[in-house]
Amino acid sequence: MSANWADLLPRMKELSHLSSSIRLLGWDQHVLMPAAGSGGRAAALATLQSIAHDRLTDPKLGEILNKLSADGSLDETQAASVRVLKRDHEKATKVPERVVREIAETQGLAFQAWTEARASSDFSILEPHLERMVSLKKEEADALGWKNERYDALLDQYEPEMLTSDVETLFTDLVNKLKPLAEQILQRAGERPEWLTDAYDVNKQTDYCHWLIQILKFDTMRGRLDVSPHPFTIHVGPGDVRQTTRYDERNVMMGILGTIHETGHALYEQGIPEEYLGLPVGETRSLGLHESQSRLWEMQVGTGKPFTEFQLPHLKERFPSQLSGLDPDAFYLGVIHPRRSLIRVNSDVVTYNLHITFRFELELALFRDELEVKDLPDAWDAAMEKHVGIRPDDVANGVLQDMHWSIGALGYFPTYSLGTLWAAALYRTADDELGGLSDDLRKGETGRLLDWLREKIHKPANTRPAKEVAQAVLGAPLSVDPFIDYVRTKYSEAYELDL
Amino acid sequence: MSANWADLLPRMKELSHLSSSIRLLGWDQHVLMPAAGSGGRAAALATLQSIAHDRLTDPKLGEILNKLSADGSLDETQAASVRVLKRDHEKATKVPERVVREIAETQGLAFQAWTEARASSDFSILEPHLERMVSLKKEEADALGWKNERYDALLDQYEPEMLTSDVETLFTDLVNKLKPLAEQILQRAGERPEWLTDAYDVNKQTDYCHWLIQILKFDTMRGRLDVSPHPFTIHVGPGDVRQTTRYDERNVMMGILGTIHETGHALYEQGIPEEYLGLPVGETRSLGLHESQSRLWEMQVGTGKPFTEFQLPHLKERFPSQLSGLDPDAFYLGVIHPRRSLIRVNSDVVTYNLHITFRFELELALFRDELEVKDLPDAWDAAMEKHVGIRPDDVANGVLQDMHWSIGALGYFPTYSLGTLWAAALYRTADDELGGLSDDLRKGETGRLLDWLREKIHKPANTRPAKEVAQAVLGAPLSVDPFIDYVRTKYSEAYELDL
Repeated sequence: MSANWADLLPRMKELSHLSSSIRLLGWDQHVLMPAAGSGGRAAALATLQSIAHDRLTDPKLGEILNKLSADGSLDETQAASVRVLKRDHEKATKVPERVVREIAETQGLAFQAWTEARASSDFSILEPHLERMVSLKKEEADALGWKNERYDALLDQYEPEMLTSDVETLFTDLVNKLKPLAEQILQRAGERPEWLTDAYDVNKQTDYCHWLIQILKFDTMRGRLDVSPHPFTIHVGPGDVRQTTRYDERNVMMGILGTIHETGHALYEQGIPEEYLGLPVGETRSLGLHESQSRLWEMQVGTGKPFTEFQLPHLKERFPSQLSGLDPDAFYLGVIHPRRSLIRVNSDVVTYNLHITFRFELELALFRDELEVKDLPDAWDAAMEKHVGIRPDDVANGVLQDMHWSIGALGYFPTYSLGTLWAAALYRTADDELGGLSDDLRKGETGRLLDWLREKIHKPANTRPAKEVAQAVLGAPLSVDPFIDYVRTKYSEAYELDL
Repeated sequence: MSANWADLLPRMKELSHLSSSIRLLGWDQHVLMPAAGSGGRAAALATLQSIAHDRLTDPKLGEILNKLSADGSLDETQAASVRVLKRDHEKATKVPERVVREIAETQGLAFQAWTEARASSDFSILEPHLERMVSLKKEEADALGWKNERYDALLDQYEPEMLTSDVETLFTDLVNKLKPLAEQILQRAGERPEWLTDAYDVNKQTDYCHWLIQILKFDTMRGRLDVSPHPFTIHVGPGDVRQTTRYDERNVMMGILGTIHETGHALYEQGIPEEYLGLPVGETRSLGLHESQSRLWEMQVGTGKPFTEFQLPHLKERFPSQLSGLDPDAFYLGVIHPRRSLIRVNSDVVTYNLHITFRFELELALFRDELEVKDLPDAWDAAMEKHVGIRPDDVANGVLQDMHWSIGALGYFPTYSLGTLWAAALYRTADDELGGLSDDLRKGETGRLLDWLREKIHKPANTRPAKEVAQAVLGAPLSVDPFIDYVRTKYSEAYELDL
């Protein structure tokens, strides 16, 4: 029987090497490729993806996986690899070649159209492409098959084994509890403190962030930090995890918190056991659990009082003229300052999830045939007003602000809030089990927390469905309460409110 | 019949996309990959190379190419593409899979061994791997087939359609004429001027070189300049030509001349007609002709009196404390200062080719079974003494200085000198045809020269054998005389000698 594992191994390696190459081409495209190279790069990427798709859908691979699924002699890693790859193979096999190709083509056209539409704040430029994309994603969902409703199939691509109904229940609860809380907090927040929008030299910000990621134990011998307009983290290959960030002279905390966020993703990737790399279990499938790591480091650690106390003196050293007069309380109040923003990526701990939940509602309406693409801008504005309490002045700052839908990433947004909810629950559990995390963080010591996350999340994360992994750690299904408690406590203390 | 071209097109595109991906993986590996990623990267590269090899040796491709070779209706670009790809296909098909695989494996092991051997100056660490490599390359040469002798097959991989006997005749003539000339020049050269080894801030050197490549009309919208330990230039894909350089605080001219050298390669790549990209004629095969471009810009332009006069004021602006007292003559004499160096890459216009010619003699002796790998260190030292006039103090500075042999690049070295010879001949022809190039260069104007090279070399270079392309421009077969005249005139004038 073990001969079959030997048959599978070179196929897995080949798929892994193709994915690794595709990831590097993508990283380079977003970080340093000359703009004139974009056409050639897109073509090269399409070729690699098509080769990878051929390999993944090879019927011979299916046969080997079927045999191995019934093989009781496999060890745990092997069995998990077979399970994960079988899922990928079956999903890839179900979608007709034509749909795969048309989605890829539409991605290119729609992304281009989105760029233009956003620049001229004109939804009609994107509309026909987005209509085509939604229609193709419906076809894809139906080809993949679903349990209760079509959206299940979309969600499953980013959050395996999670159902729309699970998310709907959670998000309804989240909105009901978060909205009144947010209203009270926002009323009390007051003006933005001046130090937040002072000018901070970008080179010095860069130096600081390169120092900070080492404090957070990102292994710079096995990775890099670079700059890109849309920050992201990617596991190029074994020993090579790359994160990016962005800096704005007038928004120092964006660079710092953004870097901490990506470091959370990157620590997760660097925590995947070495023996998994090159196997299907070496690649992450639950974006929600991935986001839980970035959100935990950004929110619970980065915007937490203890770690802001640790950071302040180091920032003062580099930016004396902007920060020397600031005391730790004032710094902390600035870091956690919330506001109603039209733009999701400029929002904060309090309002961020309200941006996500209404995107989920809109996606759901699209895929339940309750909303047409042409009506999206109005639906967006209404939802924004209802959830966040402000109305976009134009579509560029409204429905056109995110690229996700143009590239067909439908079913993706919910994972941002799932990550937030898991982050709060995981941090609370870690603190319960370890005790004294605040004292650690006040000294900039993150080792105990990281070790705990390595053991509880990074190691097992890719071998079982995220829901199971998290539940095993939390001892209960995911709930919104740890996050709501976190927001309530944080702002009750900061604003001396009785929330 | 045109249906067959349509059959060929997607196969050529796929091969081109695979090559482009392989080149990007290689670029990244040498420029910014974290060292810990090397194992994974080597594996991913091997997979892509193996897929490309499968595609290239596909018998179906051979059938299509055979049909198209007999198709008189193809246009010039199509016919050249078929000719070039047919050659590649046939060569790839001739070498047994086992030999391909074993060479790839030995490359990895031997390169690793070379690194260690050089660090500890111990040839015995490399010896068994190099023996294996030479034996495999003999097998490969015999599988490829050759005309007069085995080395023909090796040379043909880097300099298509060039014969060992052509090179031997040229190099014998070159050594006979260059050696006595070099002796006279070296005797007169005197001490190295101090400004050459002053400290020059590396950031300022970097700024200067980024400015300089734009003066030389490298299109930075369609390419990049980065840093790597071993400078190289690579055409990642359409609109994306990347060159690298290196800087040494104590050797400012190394960075500048090295950058000009790579810019020569890069201008060539940026000059390949756009309609060739993605086709076999979009990729360079003659390394000698490629090197002619880098050498022409480095030697004839970069170390030429007029361009040094142009550069000096710009360098003084950036490095006043090191250069403000220097007059143009003293600067020029420093730039062209020759010396007997143990290390090829630290040598100069006068001695460089003597380093190359003896490497060619050693390679030839190995492949004529007149020299064994174990005897290479002694043979090296003797040849170095005979040609360059100094004897290495250890093998690290002797036979172990270059990585080429360890990675199986046997037959490669001659292209460096072929490039030098072509460069001198081409520049002389350009100056004859255009007139007044010195006046242009004194003003930093390189446009007329570049346009001429674009038209005469860059455009046709990949569609015909290099020998033919060059001969059409030069009106005569390659000879050593333009280069010898160049050295004689340059140093006669500079040193007021009657050479």
